Amino acid sequence: MFKHDKALLQEVKVDGPNPAYAAMMQEQLGGPHGELKAALQYMSQSMSIKDPEIKDLFLDIASEELGHMEMVATTVNLLNGHTLDANNATIGSIQAHVSTGLTPALTSASGQYWTAAYIEETGDLAADILSNISAEQRAKVVYQYLYRQINDKGVRETIDFLLNREEAHNTMFREAFNRLQDTGSLKDWGVTKDSKLYFNLSTPGGQFFNANNPQPPSFNSPNAAGGPKM
Amino acid sequence: MFKHDKALLQEVKVDGPNPAYAAMMQEQLGGPHGELKAALQYMSQSMSIKDPEIKDLFLDIASEELGHMEMVATTVNLLNGHTLDANNATIGSIQAHVSTGLTPALTSASGQYWTAAYIEETGDLAADILSNISAEQRAKVVYQYLYRQINDKGVRETIDFLLNREEAHNTMFREAFNRLQDTGSLKDWGVTKDSKLYFNLSTPGGQFFNANNPQPPSFNSPNAAGGPKM
Amino acid sequence: MFKHDKALLQEVKVDGPNPAYAAMMQEQLGGPHGELKAALQYMSQSMSIKDPEIKDLFLDIASEELGHMEMVATTVNLLNGHTLDANNATIGSIQAHVSTGLTPALTSASGQYWTAAYIEETGDLAADILSNISAEQRAKVVYQYLYRQINDKGVRETIDFLLNREEAHNTMFREAFNRLQDTGSLKDWGVTKDSKLYFNLSTPGGQFFNANNPQPPSFNSPNAAGGPKM
Amino acid sequence: MFKHDKALLQEVKVDGPNPAYAAMMQEQLGGPHGELKAALQYMSQSMSIKDPEIKDLFLDIASEELGHMEMVATTVNLLNGHTLDANNATIGSIQAHVSTGLTPALTSASGQYWTAAYIEETGDLAADILSNISAEQRAKVVYQYLYRQINDKGVRETIDFLLNREEAHNTMFREAFNRLQDTGSLKDWGVTKDSKLYFNLSTPGGQFFNANNPQPPSFNSPNAAGGPKM
Amino acid sequence: MFKHDKALLQEVKVDGPNPAYAAMMQEQLGGPHGELKAALQYMSQSMSIKDPEIKDLFLDIASEELGHMEMVATTVNLLNGHTLDANNATIGSIQAHVSTGLTPALTSASGQYWTAAYIEETGDLAADILSNISAEQRAKVVYQYLYRQINDKGVRETIDFLLNREEAHNTMFREAFNRLQDTGSLKDWGVTKDSKLYFNLSTPGGQFFNANNPQPPSFNSPNAAGGPKM
Amino acid sequence: MFKHDKALLQEVKVDGPNPAYAAMMQEQLGGPHGELKAALQYMSQSMSIKDPEIKDLFLDIASEELGHMEMVATTVNLLNGHTLDANNATIGSIQAHVSTGLTPALTSASGQYWTAAYIEETGDLAADILSNISAEQRAKVVYQYLYRQINDKGVRETIDFLLNREEAHNTMFREAFNRLQDTGSLKDWGVTKDSKLYFNLSTPGGQFFNANNPQPPSFNSPNAAGGPKM
Repeated sequence: MFKHDKALLQEVKVDGPNPAYAAMMQEQLGGPHGELKAALQYMSQSMSIKDPEIKDLFLDIASEELGHMEMVATTVNLLNGHTLDANNATIGSIQAHVSTGLTPALTSASGQYWTAAYIEETGDLAADILSNISAEQRAKVVYQYLYRQINDKGVRETIDFLLNREEAHNTMFREAFNRLQDTGSLKDWGVTKDSKLYFNLSTPGGQFFNANNPQPPSFNSPNAAGGPKM
Repeated sequence: MFKHDKALLQEVKVDGPNPAYAAMMQEQLGGPHGELKAALQYMSQSMSIKDPEIKDLFLDIASEELGHMEMVATTVNLLNGHTLDANNATIGSIQAHVSTGLTPALTSASGQYWTAAYIEETGDLAADILSNISAEQRAKVVYQYLYRQINDKGVRETIDFLLNREEAHNTMFREAFNRLQDTGSLKDWGVTKDSKLYFNLSTPGGQFFNANNPQPPSFNSPNAAGGPKM
Repeated sequence: MFKHDKALLQEVKVDGPNPAYAAMMQEQLGGPHGELKAALQYMSQSMSIKDPEIKDLFLDIASEELGHMEMVATTVNLLNGHTLDANNATIGSIQAHVSTGLTPALTSASGQYWTAAYIEETGDLAADILSNISAEQRAKVVYQYLYRQINDKGVRETIDFLLNREEAHNTMFREAFNRLQDTGSLKDWGVTKDSKLYFNLSTPGGQFFNANNPQPPSFNSPNAAGGPKM
Repeated sequence: MFKHDKALLQEVKVDGPNPAYAAMMQEQLGGPHGELKAALQYMSQSMSIKDPEIKDLFLDIASEELGHMEMVATTVNLLNGHTLDANNATIGSIQAHVSTGLTPALTSASGQYWTAAYIEETGDLAADILSNISAEQRAKVVYQYLYRQINDKGVRETIDFLLNREEAHNTMFREAFNRLQDTGSLKDWGVTKDSKLYFNLSTPGGQFFNANNPQPPSFNSPNAAGGPKM
Repeated sequence: MFKHDKALLQEVKVDGPNPAYAAMMQEQLGGPHGELKAALQYMSQSMSIKDPEIKDLFLDIASEELGHMEMVATTVNLLNGHTLDANNATIGSIQAHVSTGLTPALTSASGQYWTAAYIEETGDLAADILSNISAEQRAKVVYQYLYRQINDKGVRETIDFLLNREEAHNTMFREAFNRLQDTGSLKDWGVTKDSKLYFNLSTPGGQFFNANNPQPPSFNSPNAAGGPKM
Repeated sequence: MFKHDKALLQEVKVDGPNPAYAAMMQEQLGGPHGELKAALQYMSQSMSIKDPEIKDLFLDIASEELGHMEMVATTVNLLNGHTLDANNATIGSIQAHVSTGLTPALTSASGQYWTAAYIEETGDLAADILSNISAEQRAKVVYQYLYRQINDKGVRETIDFLLNREEAHNTMFREAFNRLQDTGSLKDWGVTKDSKLYFNLSTPGGQFFNANNPQPPSFNSPNAAGGPKM
């Protein structure tokens, strides 16, 4: 079961109203790489996980992402201020003014309703964790884009917190992934010559990659020193 | 520009009509992990890639996935046979009988229209390649599910070919990923203490994963011996 | 913030696998009147509520609906059993067999992805609570339909619990509604003669309803005796 | 069958072109609480109603809502004026300039296509009428938001008319609802102790509402004096 | 404004219940080529037509298509019968049993919600009428598919009526089209050599069509003798 | 199979960045009348065509439309420039700045994801070619709207090329259509009196069109002199 604690995971504040940026921030509430997507992806994937520790991890992170949603929504609220004024609104925010009375909605920055088509779910644990690793990376990218386009100190602190949390999730998903060697879809499918071929269908030009020598992806460890770098 | 060659990438055949399985196979034509999704994801991601070799790789694989679409569609055609008979059709295929006259459509197995909401695109090369690695893994999982539910020798050969091709793509995407160390979103965001925290929001129970010690995901190399294992 | 407790709100069990009914039960996981819709509707509406008690009520019920999702998903899991077999599956469940490996998905019974277009949100508290009262009524109706089509004792107990909880929510939403007299959209909009007119646009036939004499909707109190009646 | 009369239900005019407001007004043509939604919801619900007077009421109001669509669309036309000029357009209206040549479209203010996912339909008359009562309330809220953001006298007259008509519909739906005591989903489902519980899942804080003492929602009658109040 | 007449355009009946075929017939209620699509396409296109006779034609046919919707819905009702029984239902109809209580819904045969993405609207009269001519042809094709898969005499009479009405609409749309020579998008765009080229991008094989010699499409007149031919 | 050639069908350039127009140009990448729709419509229709010359034509044009997508996407890239700056962006482009890092996406100008609901496919060759003729006409209309709203010489040259190519496709589809007399859905359905009726459902007013005297649509030949006319 889920429970709600009135405290936010971390307090949010903004230097002042900024309705245009409120619309941009909406992207991480109801957009394809946003917090709702993350929460529901991990929650629905967890529904058939048998390993109790990994299932617990998924539900832990899903719960945290629901808490992130609250932080993003509270930020959108503060940025929107209190006055309906679509005539002077900038891009993306018109429905906030005519349909939801400035209440944050489960839509992307351009007003597209959230859809479960965003969710990647296969019931195969290896594939699902790889999906989550890439989802966290995409969420990080969007927070970087958002960070670069705002000077509001309060908003930047919130984004910095959320972005670093995606990194923490990524670390834990990778750790879980490393427990899965040779299980499920990571099991060798009986590799045939077909998996070694390179069909060079793009011309003119040579062949730059080699399907015949599989290597794992490599990741450098993040260093320990703090403070965002852009 | 794109060109079409009338030959299929590999000939397809089926032992006999099987309309129920035709509906299942539709999943890889227009479903969330299917060939159209792969082709269009790589094609749209490629639109802003500056590295000419990686851009070439993306368009190469996109072209091949369009060719896979043709193989899947031809298989669906052969499995559907030629007689409209929705009254005796099984799950999923009703629209084939009343709307498209048995022509394969860009829908999932349950008739949901393909949507670009399936596409993962951020303009950050590291995030996009990780998305592609996970997408190939999910495609492999679906082909494994399909393989297990059919005895038709022709269909199994086609699935085996397509599944092994996803492995080849995955190998090449990993190779491309390994060129990207410390670029784009792989650059350290100035790791703060927030990225080392574990919020234990799931009770009762301890803490099984460690956000404080980031490790890369590890992958075993596939062995060399051929033939599908299930 | 949200937290997860590993215990279900109430234990669920089934007499035995029933994949066809699993597909039907999916409707209350990811369908238009299901638990996800309820949870997210109350959660997103709550984002701009100023009255702390009413905000608390909305988040309380939202949390409970997330717990209902888990109960429904666990029931779907138990009904699906463990064997992929779409060829013998009945209506609606094909994607469980080819796409999600029998993991419950955020879709309706016919495989349509959940969409935030289901959510009713206006930022006006009176309108939003009326929306919730009607949403709870619709959820009750769907559970009644489901109850009538299954004899499995375990499933019936789960449905009976969930249905009665919707009644409890409805009672509390009505209580909250009764605090709102003459506020927000319940305030008289300066009633004009236009609101008293009946345009009789349907012929042939008389006029059976009277726009000139507004009455509140009336509700009988449920009686106290237990046990489902059909 | 349906028939069309060339006269509008009430003449519409605008003081002058206002393309930004045209985009806002679109919300009530093709948005989630707009006229098309209302018309099609009542029309599709009516398809299984057996009580001839209530069926007639639903089709009467559905017909009127189709007439409201025409009024909204004509207003959008007048506000758009005749010149394609997306470069100087404000939020929401870009597709009017590049895709529909300024013809009103069945989309929301932010360009989202109308979807039948907006429609609430259960086949249970009590649930359906409650859905309609809440739908009319939401439509009223959106018209209030629109009214507050325009000074154009013609547009305000049209909105005032449409808003008051929603009130009239609401009066009639409530009257119809009051005929249904103890039928369909209003019948007591055999109330159990589960429907009296309050799960207090939100902390910290007490319990402000009481599931153990069901009361009907109460509504004050609108007063008789005319003229909008804001 | 629109008005409703309780009489159907033509009485419908069925020989007996047939829930599987009810699901198939749904396609023409809420599917991509169905009656709702036709009605709303012509209605929304009409919103900017200036020629009063052509505008009248569009609204006339839109009204008739709304009447067709009623005929299709009534047929679906009769075919569904009165008993919820999804366990024995065949393809496509599960939501009728668990969500709408057998009330026809605005969905396709596979349960996909109707979407305004089906509507073709450009604000250019020539393009819009060509869209309508092709839409009527597609509707005819779907009715032919449906006709071939049912022996119920009542249903066949209804389909025959509806199919012939689409022919009548097509005749009238063609007549309207022929008034438009050299207007709007039919005006020559200053034809350049680019419009005469044939890019032969498909190999191997020659070139079978000639872009250099534009000819109008030709249509044979239907003959006068009655009775469906298959 | 499909192959990719690195050369564009025709080189594209722009006089300078123009992010607002980039958003408008997106319409022809992922909008309802855009290049992706055309490519995938012809590709999926081709999947059941038996006439080898017509099948070849469909795949030829589909391949060309994929090449048009690249031209449109490259133009969008050039117009977007390189700086994320949603705060100063105009209508429609917000997601380019916060979600895709200025990479063109498969969405319409207002950010709506491309959906296969745009595709018209029936499996009947006559209906499908008529659909394609109308689709090409709509694409031409959108290019005309775009042409009128830009002075950039490079963009105008690209639009002029693409628009003239749609004319060429239209010429070839008409030629293919003219081979189909009296086949498929062009076969007379046994015309009954129902197809000759005119239901005059629109009042007041007379009857301006005649369902009793079917005529083919007529098309004037484009003249030979070059250069766009507006």
